[in-house]
Amino acid sequence: MSKYVISFAMMNRLPLYLDYLLNLESKGVQNVSATTIAKDMGLGEVLVRKELSVISGKGKPRVGYKTSSLIKDFDNFLQVDKASKAIIVGAGKLGRALLGYSRFSKFGVDVLAAFDSDIDKIDNKKIFSMNRLKQFIKDNKVKIGIITVPRENAVEVYETLIDAGIKGIWNFAPVILKKKPGVMVKQQNLALSLAHLNIMLRNEI
Amino acid sequence: MSKYVISFAMMNRLPLYLDYLLNLESKGVQNVSATTIAKDMGLGEVLVRKELSVISGKGKPRVGYKTSSLIKDFDNFLQVDKASKAIIVGAGKLGRALLGYSRFSKFGVDVLAAFDSDIDKIDNKKIFSMNRLKQFIKDNKVKIGIITVPRENAVEVYETLIDAGIKGIWNFAPVILKKKPGVMVKQQNLALSLAHLNIMLRNEI
Repeated sequence: MSKYVISFAMMNRLPLYLDYLLNLESKGVQNVSATTIAKDMGLGEVLVRKELSVISGKGKPRVGYKTSSLIKDFDNFLQVDKASKAIIVGAGKLGRALLGYSRFSKFGVDVLAAFDSDIDKIDNKKIFSMNRLKQFIKDNKVKIGIITVPRENAVEVYETLIDAGIKGIWNFAPVILKKKPGVMVKQQNLALSLAHLNIMLRNEI
Repeated sequence: MSKYVISFAMMNRLPLYLDYLLNLESKGVQNVSATTIAKDMGLGEVLVRKELSVISGKGKPRVGYKTSSLIKDFDNFLQVDKASKAIIVGAGKLGRALLGYSRFSKFGVDVLAAFDSDIDKIDNKKIFSMNRLKQFIKDNKVKIGIITVPRENAVEVYETLIDAGIKGIWNFAPVILKKKPGVMVKQQNLALSLAHLNIMLRNEI
């Protein structure tokens, strides 16, 4: 992949394009035009044309792009083949649901395993004891840690992960984790998401 | 609750305040000042003072607010006691994880049950057959539907839910659902969230 200078906003849109295209592919749509993509995704056509040309060159007149080729170009650009490695801490229901979610790999992240301190949850196939967490992270060069432990354990787990070399945190525990240098934290508070939907509904915003 | 004219932005912040306060309470913090809240939440102090005074009146000089009273005032304002009712369609791993998530009720949403077409998943306690979906929604005046079915079933489920009177949709299936009049849709694409974290990490944005 050559290095393009692209905006943060475009970077953020790339997985959205890919997600849309994977959807089209699953419906058996073989060709798609920039116009259709722009319309379906609610984006400006000029913008979409420009961004697609960065990723995949120009489409064919009338036909547009071949869906499968466009997906391949996004895969290349996003380096989906050189997947980043992730682990989950907390093999409760949510942790296990995320561990079984095959779709992450389509976006270049392999979720390798989960870790838990409860021995009843450990199967030594995909779910391991917390004792093995640090070594596993080092051995497998894991860069992303997904936190699905209860609130009261989240901060300790966060610090353990950073000690072990994790650079990106996806945190489902309802605790705000303090920012640390060189570490990116993405909060995912599911209760808040539902609360927002509920408030919008009640107020018909 | 009296009706205040408050901004959309403030409406969106209310659950964030409540979440923060519930966190404090779980740590045993009995009093909190607007200054501390502003600092911890990364908000402007003037804004926080104004918003708290709308919800709970003025804090005491030096002491600030009693955490438990402030939570009660947020609960009242958000009408947590008159909980909205929600159901889940799709009792796979994610659906069952959400069904077991006790925290939703703290924000005024009761997730009553899940529905699935796979009879192996049905327990007739919390997980029911799809045949019973419409009647259940009507009988229980359910307003929110959470979609955790595979992508290929999501659109059909969406339409069934709207037919049955659902007004708010929280959609975890990786499909963009077409907007319909009088229905609010919140997309929750977990693969995209992880993809964004990964992209930010790789590019150190």
